Amino acid sequence: MAGSNFFSEIFLFPLSGKITPILATATEGGAEPAMVVAGVLLSLVAIYIASKAGGEFFNWLGFPPVLGELVGGVIIGISALNLVIFPESGVDSSSSVIINILQATAGLSPDAAEATFEAQSEVLEVLAELGVIILLFEIGLESNIRELKQVGIQAIVVATVGVVLPFVAGTAGMITIFHVSAVPAIFAGAALTATSIGITSRVLAEINRLNTKEGQIILGAAVIDDVMGIIILAVVASLAKTGEIDIVNVVYLIVSATVFLVGAILLGRQFNSVFVFFAEKFKTRGRAVIPALTIALFMSYIGAAIHLEAILGAFAAGLVLDNLDETEVGRELEKLILPISDVIVPIFFVTVGTKTNLAVLNPAVPTNREGLVIAIFLIVVAIVGKVACGFSVFGLGPVNRLAVGVGMVPRGEVGLVFAAVGSASGALSPALNVAIILMVILTTFLAPPLLKVVFGEAEAEAEEVSETSG
Amino acid sequence: MAGSNFFSEIFLFPLSGKITPILATATEGGAEPAMVVAGVLLSLVAIYIASKAGGEFFNWLGFPPVLGELVGGVIIGISALNLVIFPESGVDSSSSVIINILQATAGLSPDAAEATFEAQSEVLEVLAELGVIILLFEIGLESNIRELKQVGIQAIVVATVGVVLPFVAGTAGMITIFHVSAVPAIFAGAALTATSIGITSRVLAEINRLNTKEGQIILGAAVIDDVMGIIILAVVASLAKTGEIDIVNVVYLIVSATVFLVGAILLGRQFNSVFVFFAEKFKTRGRAVIPALTIALFMSYIGAAIHLEAILGAFAAGLVLDNLDETEVGRELEKLILPISDVIVPIFFVTVGTKTNLAVLNPAVPTNREGLVIAIFLIVVAIVGKVACGFSVFGLGPVNRLAVGVGMVPRGEVGLVFAAVGSASGALSPALNVAIILMVILTTFLAPPLLKVVFGEAEAEAEEVSETSG
Repeated sequence: MAGSNFFSEIFLFPLSGKITPILATATEGGAEPAMVVAGVLLSLVAIYIASKAGGEFFNWLGFPPVLGELVGGVIIGISALNLVIFPESGVDSSSSVIINILQATAGLSPDAAEATFEAQSEVLEVLAELGVIILLFEIGLESNIRELKQVGIQAIVVATVGVVLPFVAGTAGMITIFHVSAVPAIFAGAALTATSIGITSRVLAEINRLNTKEGQIILGAAVIDDVMGIIILAVVASLAKTGEIDIVNVVYLIVSATVFLVGAILLGRQFNSVFVFFAEKFKTRGRAVIPALTIALFMSYIGAAIHLEAILGAFAAGLVLDNLDETEVGRELEKLILPISDVIVPIFFVTVGTKTNLAVLNPAVPTNREGLVIAIFLIVVAIVGKVACGFSVFGLGPVNRLAVGVGMVPRGEVGLVFAAVGSASGALSPALNVAIILMVILTTFLAPPLLKVVFGEAEAEAEEVSETSG
Repeated sequence: MAGSNFFSEIFLFPLSGKITPILATATEGGAEPAMVVAGVLLSLVAIYIASKAGGEFFNWLGFPPVLGELVGGVIIGISALNLVIFPESGVDSSSSVIINILQATAGLSPDAAEATFEAQSEVLEVLAELGVIILLFEIGLESNIRELKQVGIQAIVVATVGVVLPFVAGTAGMITIFHVSAVPAIFAGAALTATSIGITSRVLAEINRLNTKEGQIILGAAVIDDVMGIIILAVVASLAKTGEIDIVNVVYLIVSATVFLVGAILLGRQFNSVFVFFAEKFKTRGRAVIPALTIALFMSYIGAAIHLEAILGAFAAGLVLDNLDETEVGRELEKLILPISDVIVPIFFVTVGTKTNLAVLNPAVPTNREGLVIAIFLIVVAIVGKVACGFSVFGLGPVNRLAVGVGMVPRGEVGLVFAAVGSASGALSPALNVAIILMVILTTFLAPPLLKVVFGEAEAEAEEVSETSG
């Protein structure tokens, strides 16, 4: 029938990919801009559904919501549905369900699929990075610089012990028990030193323990641990690449990190005045958030530019915008940052989940079996080493030392970076790589519920201690 | 001195670009992910400073802030500072001041500069698109579907007259006065038909006239105009390419646009219930914004996938999430969407400004002089044609018909798309291309202050009429 033909021609058009995307002027790379936007939109829909489904379900189960966001990410990611995946996992556009949907429903041409996949992934990576930047900015805003200074020495001790213990035990164990040679053993030891500020601080905020003494020690130690982690990574990466340590680079990182963090704190008052001055003068929409965000993004840029991390800059920016309760714009900012954080932060956690490849758990693969055995050792060292560092807190009166230690356990995205750099440098055997990834997964997914338990048990005590805090 | 040498070595390291960005594992394209993030961060800092400096200054002058955001964009964009520029303007990474800063301060390697520039631009393009999506979603939320239906016929008439008049006058004038051949004349005529929903609706919101009878007519007509614009663009683009009109494509666009908009409105009640159901059940952070945003992004995806526009989907989503005042989560949403909109929407307007190339005003270039003459004609037709369409409003009692017409004047980003497609297809001579761009710039920058004036003069009248509205 002519009629049915007519309609099928019209409605099958997009399915056969023949409609020319007129508004899309393809760039030289071959990505179709309108399709990149469509791909990002669909990815965000998947990410938000995963974050809310996971977050609400785990909250209902009594676990921290952030764990649910990670698990939601695992489900839509490389381990299961392949909805949100990234080229860095070694997949191409044909594995991406989103790209396949775009080809089937929106007329994305096969030629442009690869470039569109890469562009879309790039955008999602940056959105996730902006997510953790906003998270750390919010955490910085909620933290109190004076309280953080009070626990400063403890934080340094906890961070140092939490780096040295797992590193020494891990490296020694790899060499003596598993007969691994020095460089990969050092790499495995180094991967054990990381702590994910993102996961720890988000859980602390969720269970309302950020401004307890324990919360501030954990936060301070995690920040210092992050700086140490970057330096350690620089050391082991150059060791793996050239067999030597690039002393200049290491010194540069130590000096720039110190100058940056100390400088940010010393200039804090100035930043604060700049913010209040502009925010109070401004009369158009966004008068409080835009100046604050501009400072946060600028500090993040500095953090990234000096080869520290953008999130350290964001945290420092949040920290120096202090005493917000004292001004009207400050109180406004504290309220307005929440919805912004609500929509952007989940992109980060879900993305971390999507990149978690549970294929390493498959015991049918020989290197996985070998990796599982090493992993058990690494996991024990990872947990015991960090929990032990909590007990190095001294002279602060009643402190939940177990909670401090548990707060340092999650390796999160930082641990994955170690695994990725190690694997890319060729220093790690496949089995060792699997073992490190398993250690990262387990510590990351175990820490949030553990943290809730150890804080919950000591609730009365923590309550009492936190009375002096905000 | 050894000491000074030591320090200069350390601190000049990043300047000489020798520090290896260890955390950045370069993709095959050659972009350095950490540098893409750094570039986006610095671009956003520039964009936010431009948006606030421009917005506040123009507000102080008595102009709508959005005009200041556009002008701020012009200053940091391709016309002046070259801070935020895009490959589509025909520039490469060496013109980008941000990329130069990254090379000088963050050790971006020259090899990776081009790919990093492209990736960074891609991310900013998507952020700008997300900005206009959120804007239209917010405008949709603020609009009342019943009131929009009341003025539906008027909106259709205004849109139709506002498309036909400038198109016929423009095309005829090009042929008779300037002796241009048929296809480029039709292209110029078609470019005159566009209306920028983004600019118009933002100004209406800024001067609190969105929910007046005039505001709803303008909004409805601008939406219909946008749909017509896409169809017209499809027609003229295929005409320019093949000399024929792709009837199937045109029918497909008309049918899909109708099905989409009517379907969205008919299914509105269901969307609304879904939103309220989930938002009221949810207990974790972002319970209202995430479900709402998920619906908005999904509808935007549908809009993009069927080759309409993402923003039409976002507007429809906002429109169907109606009667928000009746539920607690609805009232929550209306409040929480504002700060999100505050931080993302300026990226769109500033970006439109950055892409505006004032070099076409340079009279030293011969085609510019020729273009200026044609531009004067196009501008007159552009303004008179749209203002006249406002007077086609009938039988609604006292209506500020002048304001309705002026509201349809700005061509904005839609007009630029026409110019880009025409120029890419080779149908437009350089002079005609310049003329169209000048027409777009002038109508875009003139409309906001004009709109404020025509609404201001009729303030008492508008006030009275809007009493029945929310």
